[in-house]
Amino acid sequence: MPPESVSRTNNEGLSCPIELNRDVPHVTLAHGDGGRLTRQLVREHITNRLANVHLQSLDDAACLPQPVGPLAVTTDSFVVTPLFFPGGDIGSLAVYGTVNDLAVSGAHPCWLTLALILEEGLPLAVLDQVIASVASAARRSDVAIVAGDTKVVPRGAVDGLFINTTGIGVFHSPVPAGPKSLTPGDELIISGPVGQHGIAVMAARERLSFDPAPHSDSLPLVKPIRVLREQLGSRVKAMRDATRGGVAAVLHEWAEAARVTLAVEQATFPMPDELRGLSELLGVDPLYFAGEGVFLLAVEPGACEAALAILRCHPESKLAARVGEVQAQQRFPVTIRRALGTTQPLDEPTTALLPRIC
Amino acid sequence: MPPESVSRTNNEGLSCPIELNRDVPHVTLAHGDGGRLTRQLVREHITNRLANVHLQSLDDAACLPQPVGPLAVTTDSFVVTPLFFPGGDIGSLAVYGTVNDLAVSGAHPCWLTLALILEEGLPLAVLDQVIASVASAARRSDVAIVAGDTKVVPRGAVDGLFINTTGIGVFHSPVPAGPKSLTPGDELIISGPVGQHGIAVMAARERLSFDPAPHSDSLPLVKPIRVLREQLGSRVKAMRDATRGGVAAVLHEWAEAARVTLAVEQATFPMPDELRGLSELLGVDPLYFAGEGVFLLAVEPGACEAALAILRCHPESKLAARVGEVQAQQRFPVTIRRALGTTQPLDEPTTALLPRIC
Repeated sequence: MPPESVSRTNNEGLSCPIELNRDVPHVTLAHGDGGRLTRQLVREHITNRLANVHLQSLDDAACLPQPVGPLAVTTDSFVVTPLFFPGGDIGSLAVYGTVNDLAVSGAHPCWLTLALILEEGLPLAVLDQVIASVASAARRSDVAIVAGDTKVVPRGAVDGLFINTTGIGVFHSPVPAGPKSLTPGDELIISGPVGQHGIAVMAARERLSFDPAPHSDSLPLVKPIRVLREQLGSRVKAMRDATRGGVAAVLHEWAEAARVTLAVEQATFPMPDELRGLSELLGVDPLYFAGEGVFLLAVEPGACEAALAILRCHPESKLAARVGEVQAQQRFPVTIRRALGTTQPLDEPTTALLPRIC
Repeated sequence: MPPESVSRTNNEGLSCPIELNRDVPHVTLAHGDGGRLTRQLVREHITNRLANVHLQSLDDAACLPQPVGPLAVTTDSFVVTPLFFPGGDIGSLAVYGTVNDLAVSGAHPCWLTLALILEEGLPLAVLDQVIASVASAARRSDVAIVAGDTKVVPRGAVDGLFINTTGIGVFHSPVPAGPKSLTPGDELIISGPVGQHGIAVMAARERLSFDPAPHSDSLPLVKPIRVLREQLGSRVKAMRDATRGGVAAVLHEWAEAARVTLAVEQATFPMPDELRGLSELLGVDPLYFAGEGVFLLAVEPGACEAALAILRCHPESKLAARVGEVQAQQRFPVTIRRALGTTQPLDEPTTALLPRIC
């Protein structure tokens, strides 16, 4: 990302509070060649700000205590544009996205790795802002950044800044049986409004002026999920965060995995007025847009009320709602009852609605 | 990477044996949006070819058995250009680079994650070739790819294909005490010729025609390192693969960590005739160039002969040699005795000699 585009973004009132011009200190190729400048960059701009005992040695590998239980491992690359958007930035998104993947798998998130690919010319102030956001999100999620890598590529070889985070956690039994275990009668719950991250990024990227600007829902889902697991145990059958492809993609994956039909009802999805207004204005269906702080869960028949009661105790899932149920396999894998009462197939997302939203 | 540049590379006789033109099947943005095409791409071009039990479920996180011992974790992004070069490609490089980082830390490599960032328009045949190489390198290194992620970005947002691999291993005692533990009298050993990967990539990128073309030394160092640990135990004080910045960067890092001076002798570095000829022709010093199958180790006084005997039993380190020793801290952190008998400071690498070599 060349400085001028960051500056434009800044002028649009997004959340990067940095004054930038062409003369600001920036990342150079020499920062990436493994010598003294690399060590300086890594120490002064990265590890010092993510302070924890594992990162200080800068050895080739972090040494972590032996975990008690099976390991959960997930990896994710983040290529979102713009780097900063209302409600978050690429740094917080990377941390929350990865801890949420561990949480919905039924694992307790413990450690993250952080690998950065920086474009020559990236202002150091942008890097600093992103690392501060990583540090804050890691604290909020109670995980440590234990290993890292920093590469610098020449101008044009990458668009600004990409992040990979790999998450390591520990499974505590019972682990949800997963989407294959879904059977007719299971109930479907959504933890909150869907599609908010995708719509916020689209608005920020296209410089659409809304007041208030739509905010990403990016946040850690670790707490409500831990309580769900502790209190409902194996009655929680599957959980999945509704990111790329939105909740529609999750519904289709689950229907295919279990060879069932998932029937949802449009009117039951929580839909704050701003989200409804924005969706209508933009002509988009939030069911197909990414959220970064919302998950779908399937529970055994009869466990729905208890699950909703738990979720609604936590601010990150206070709008949780029952949205449908699992049925025996029919002609369409996913059906939706529309507001007017008709039931239609809900198509699987197949085309690129919005690239680079995470 | 647009098809025509792959085709050019191919015509230059590098190791990508793929006939390409503008009409070949290629990666599209729709492959990255989380829907059906994403699942198809991941299943048909990636997970099917990396077959192992952990990857089949495509859940949000892999479930791995509880490790016996402390965990070792390392992460690395690979942005090498060209994607294919004599002696390897970005796929094998990613696997070997990551298992080597675990091995030199004193850990046994077990599992890898694989995160791909693909440029819209990348020929699927290139992806297939890289994944085949990842699979082969993982088998050779006896590690499983247990989790993955695939992102597609629009043309121009990334140069072709970037890979992140995160490696997880288990430490077995004794773990090397590390560079901080170096004391005067310790002996320094190099496992083989240095700088071969950097010189091979430079020649491939600049289309320099040599016969034979210089080959990367990219290979797994797991076996000789395991035997070293088993037989010499804590007499091995530190190990480090000499990648970015070459062995010069490692020497400086160690000297700084232990507050000592490292004294090496130029004539003792193993230098096959081709490497010597190429270095002279190109006017480069291999001590500053990356290797991807060579490591520096420091052993206690008296353990040098035993270490050399072990290393020389393995084809990947058959040219191992004693190259110097640890001395009390003097004016310069690293000194080198040149061929003519003069001793000079060996400068730390500070400028970007060659970006994107790994």
